[in-house]
Amino acid sequence: MNKTAKGRFITVEGGEGAGKSSNLAFIQSLIETAGKQVLFTREPGGTPLGEAIRELLLGHKHTGMADDTELLLMFAARAEHLQQKILPALERGIWVLCDRFTDASFAYQGAGRGLSLEKIAKLQQFVQGNLRPDLTLLFDVPVDTGLQRAGKRSEPDRFESENRDFFEKVRAGYLQIATQEPDRVQVIDASPALEIVQDQIKTVVQHYLESQGE
Amino acid sequence: MNKTAKGRFITVEGGEGAGKSSNLAFIQSLIETAGKQVLFTREPGGTPLGEAIRELLLGHKHTGMADDTELLLMFAARAEHLQQKILPALERGIWVLCDRFTDASFAYQGAGRGLSLEKIAKLQQFVQGNLRPDLTLLFDVPVDTGLQRAGKRSEPDRFESENRDFFEKVRAGYLQIATQEPDRVQVIDASPALEIVQDQIKTVVQHYLESQGE
Repeated sequence: MNKTAKGRFITVEGGEGAGKSSNLAFIQSLIETAGKQVLFTREPGGTPLGEAIRELLLGHKHTGMADDTELLLMFAARAEHLQQKILPALERGIWVLCDRFTDASFAYQGAGRGLSLEKIAKLQQFVQGNLRPDLTLLFDVPVDTGLQRAGKRSEPDRFESENRDFFEKVRAGYLQIATQEPDRVQVIDASPALEIVQDQIKTVVQHYLESQGE
Repeated sequence: MNKTAKGRFITVEGGEGAGKSSNLAFIQSLIETAGKQVLFTREPGGTPLGEAIRELLLGHKHTGMADDTELLLMFAARAEHLQQKILPALERGIWVLCDRFTDASFAYQGAGRGLSLEKIAKLQQFVQGNLRPDLTLLFDVPVDTGLQRAGKRSEPDRFESENRDFFEKVRAGYLQIATQEPDRVQVIDASPALEIVQDQIKTVVQHYLESQGE
C-alpha cells in the first residue's frame, strides 16, 4: 500500500458459490459503521471499459481464447480499474471494497488453468507496481458445497461451466495464497449458516479496524 | 523467427496516410508470384476477439483510457492473433503478411504517447518470446503529406484525431526502429507517385525473396 494514501484497499475472494456476494453489503456496513466512506467495486469490470472487457472474458461468444489473451485482458481491465477508480478513491481517503482482484488471477488462471504463476506475477508487477490489497477476506467452502449453491442461481457463465477438477485447483490456489500471506489474507469458513459466517467476518473486520487505530 | 517454421512473417508499418493500404495487395502479389501461399491479416484485430478488442481501442466510446490499459489491450489482441492465426499459418509453411505489428506499439504508444519503451518491450517478450517479423516494410512520408492524404478518407478514428505533434513523434519512433534494425526494417519513401513507390517495394521484396533462396 502506498503510505501516502489514506484509504484502505480491501478485497473479497472465493470460488463459485462461496457466498461472497451475500456478504459484501455486510462487510461494507461494518466499515461504514467505523465512520469510513466506502467505494464498492468489482473485477473484472469496475469501469465502463472494464465491463466491456468483462463481457469479452465471461461471455460465451469468445470461447477458446488463448491463455495469454485471457490474462492480458484481465490485467487490461485491472489497469483501467486501478487508474480510473481505485487509486483516485484511495488518494481521497475512501476505503475501497473490491469483489475479486489479482488473487483471483493467480487462483483461476494460474492454479485453475495452469498458466505460469511467474507470468501472472509479471503482469501484477507491470500493472500494480508494489500496490497490494491491505486486507483480503477469502471465502472458503468445499467445492461440492459451492457448486451446489451456485447451481441454484442463474445460467452459468463461461468460468462456472468449467469442470469440478478445475474448481478444486482454484480452491487450492486460493488457500495457498492464504498460507503464503497469512497477515493479509484472512480465511472465512463459509460452510456454516450465514449467521456464523457473519460472526467470523465481524471478527476479522473489527480486528483489522482496531489494528488501523479505528 | 522460429527456425522450424517454414513460412515467413512479413509486416507493413507506417503512419497515417503513408500509403500502406494502397500497397498491401501489391506486396501480396509479389510474394504469390514467387509461388508462396500468403495469409493477409492486420493489427489490432485479425481474429473475432481481436476485432472486438480493436473496436474498444479505436472506437470513440472509451476515450481517456489509461496508458497501461491501451497497451495491455493491444497485446491481448496480439496474443490471440499470434496463437490462433499467425503461428499456425507459419507452421504450415504459409507466408503471413500483416498490416501493423509490434513496431506500431513502439511507435504509437511508446514514441507517440510517451509510454515506457521498457514496458512495451516487457509485453513484447511476454507475448512473443523471441518471435520477430522476418521482414518489415516501413512506409515513410512527411507528416503533413500523410495527414493530407488521410484527410481525404472517411471519418477519422481516435488515433487519427490526435494532433500533428503526436504524428511527428510516431514517425520519428518508426524511423528510430529502422535505424536500430536496418536488416529487418526496410524504409519505403512513400512520398512520390505510386509507380515509383511500387518500384521500391518490388526491389525490397525481390531482394528478400532472393536472400531466402526463392
